[in-house]
Amino acid sequence: MKKIAIIGGGVAGLSAAIYALRSGAEVVLFEQYGLGGLVATIDKIQNYPSYASVEGWKLASDVAAQAKALGLKVIRSKVLSLSKDENLFTVATEKENYVFPAVVVATGTSHNKLGIGDNLVGHGVSYCATCDGAFFRGKPVAVVGGTRTAVSEARYLADICQTVYVVNPQSHFEAEENEVNALLSRDNVCVTHNASVVDVLVSDGDVAGVKIFCNGQTSELALSAIFVATGSKPVTDFIKIDGVKTNRGYLVVDGRCETSVKGLFAAGDVSDGTLKQIVTACADGAKAGSFAAAYSATVA
Amino acid sequence: MKKIAIIGGGVAGLSAAIYALRSGAEVVLFEQYGLGGLVATIDKIQNYPSYASVEGWKLASDVAAQAKALGLKVIRSKVLSLSKDENLFTVATEKENYVFPAVVVATGTSHNKLGIGDNLVGHGVSYCATCDGAFFRGKPVAVVGGTRTAVSEARYLADICQTVYVVNPQSHFEAEENEVNALLSRDNVCVTHNASVVDVLVSDGDVAGVKIFCNGQTSELALSAIFVATGSKPVTDFIKIDGVKTNRGYLVVDGRCETSVKGLFAAGDVSDGTLKQIVTACADGAKAGSFAAAYSATVA
Repeated sequence: MKKIAIIGGGVAGLSAAIYALRSGAEVVLFEQYGLGGLVATIDKIQNYPSYASVEGWKLASDVAAQAKALGLKVIRSKVLSLSKDENLFTVATEKENYVFPAVVVATGTSHNKLGIGDNLVGHGVSYCATCDGAFFRGKPVAVVGGTRTAVSEARYLADICQTVYVVNPQSHFEAEENEVNALLSRDNVCVTHNASVVDVLVSDGDVAGVKIFCNGQTSELALSAIFVATGSKPVTDFIKIDGVKTNRGYLVVDGRCETSVKGLFAAGDVSDGTLKQIVTACADGAKAGSFAAAYSATVA
Repeated sequence: MKKIAIIGGGVAGLSAAIYALRSGAEVVLFEQYGLGGLVATIDKIQNYPSYASVEGWKLASDVAAQAKALGLKVIRSKVLSLSKDENLFTVATEKENYVFPAVVVATGTSHNKLGIGDNLVGHGVSYCATCDGAFFRGKPVAVVGGTRTAVSEARYLADICQTVYVVNPQSHFEAEENEVNALLSRDNVCVTHNASVVDVLVSDGDVAGVKIFCNGQTSELALSAIFVATGSKPVTDFIKIDGVKTNRGYLVVDGRCETSVKGLFAAGDVSDGTLKQIVTACADGAKAGSFAAAYSATVA
């Protein structure tokens, strides 16, 4: 049977579906939320080859439509576990168990929590400026983190919020130079490196400020929202197969996007790739989908 | 100096340029023909994630425009040789020599010749159905080859030519199942596997037919054009650096698209990648451009 499961409906999983379906395989994609993954939440994308600028939801929905037009079957359910017995993989969901000869894992990453005020999500703590920034129009906000995502979130918020305090736990930004420069050129952005959030101040159940610690000093900032962008970790806890993950939980793959376990492939942010971009996730998907489909046809 | 050379202006080279330019590097791209490479000659593309269907020239020109808008400098000249002394690479062209701390090779592949009738290009022998097919509207033609390209060329020609004879030297097609099925479903397509062209018949200086050999039998086909799609070889003869090529001339790269020589990167069809697709070429370019730019900044 030429048949594969894809776990995760971001652009990596959808690209895997496009390639597997075009090669004549039956494809079942498991996704608990909407299709499109992280890309669908990005404001503007300017580095996917062929688009000078495209909104994330538009790019994501175009890739999803392309896969659906080829006959993609989607099961809207959380995958509880992935295991392998003999030649076959079992995908266990809340509703049912499914068996496949080959599986592509494309579950991406989940946000690291701040550890303080995590219960205030929806009350001033957010992991997505594009999603929630507009609720804090004209107000002071903070972005916590020093990643490319943090820089991009801060730039987005600088357009709509009064002041954007960037609290970076590291000594510099891990982002492209032109993106950092674009952020620093804003006159309503205030960056503090080597700083950490030590408390979240609350008023009437909503975020009212933060206490930050930097250079031996503690200071308070009055603000309405905290956007947490302190990195992420791969979603692989559900995988009950030995020897396929790094210490940090990423799936180790070869040049064909296959793990050391025959028939188990990974694509996109969940893998241990060298560059994590939309186009590299799509290329991973193309490889994983092609080689998983070809492999599945060889399993009795 | 954060400065790189890119040799080759197809989508792999252009994607490398986009990523290097966005990271703040100066980029010089060498290309002897127009930008866009092989992609620009493809009729319809239906597997680049986000486009249900797009014409090759459109996709290629969009990627080129994206790179140009970021400040790409193009030198229209053939590269005669690439060599390395100490820390720096020398790119020698017909006009001038240039020196760079890092280089991305994205020269792709060139067509294998048929070996018979090679001097009849422009008189009935062609390497590109999209380019030349329309000259033979309503006439019988042949496609020689069994690659994905051969299948795609034959499908294209079946729409406009009277009869398409596919002469495949191999026992089966190396192409996606649905593409092969789409070809075989045409009633004006006639496929012969395990067959070879032993002579080209000429009348008044133009192709008039072919002699093919199959199963111990020689037969003649009267036709107006021969489209050669017998594979290709990497364009790497100009690289005068030891130990970076496979036996067949492809550049061996790691997960960052770097060769074993520091500062020398490769992207797209010229590298030894596992899957050769537009999206994988673009992803290679993203990696090679990013890591080459970062490396160049470390060279004194």
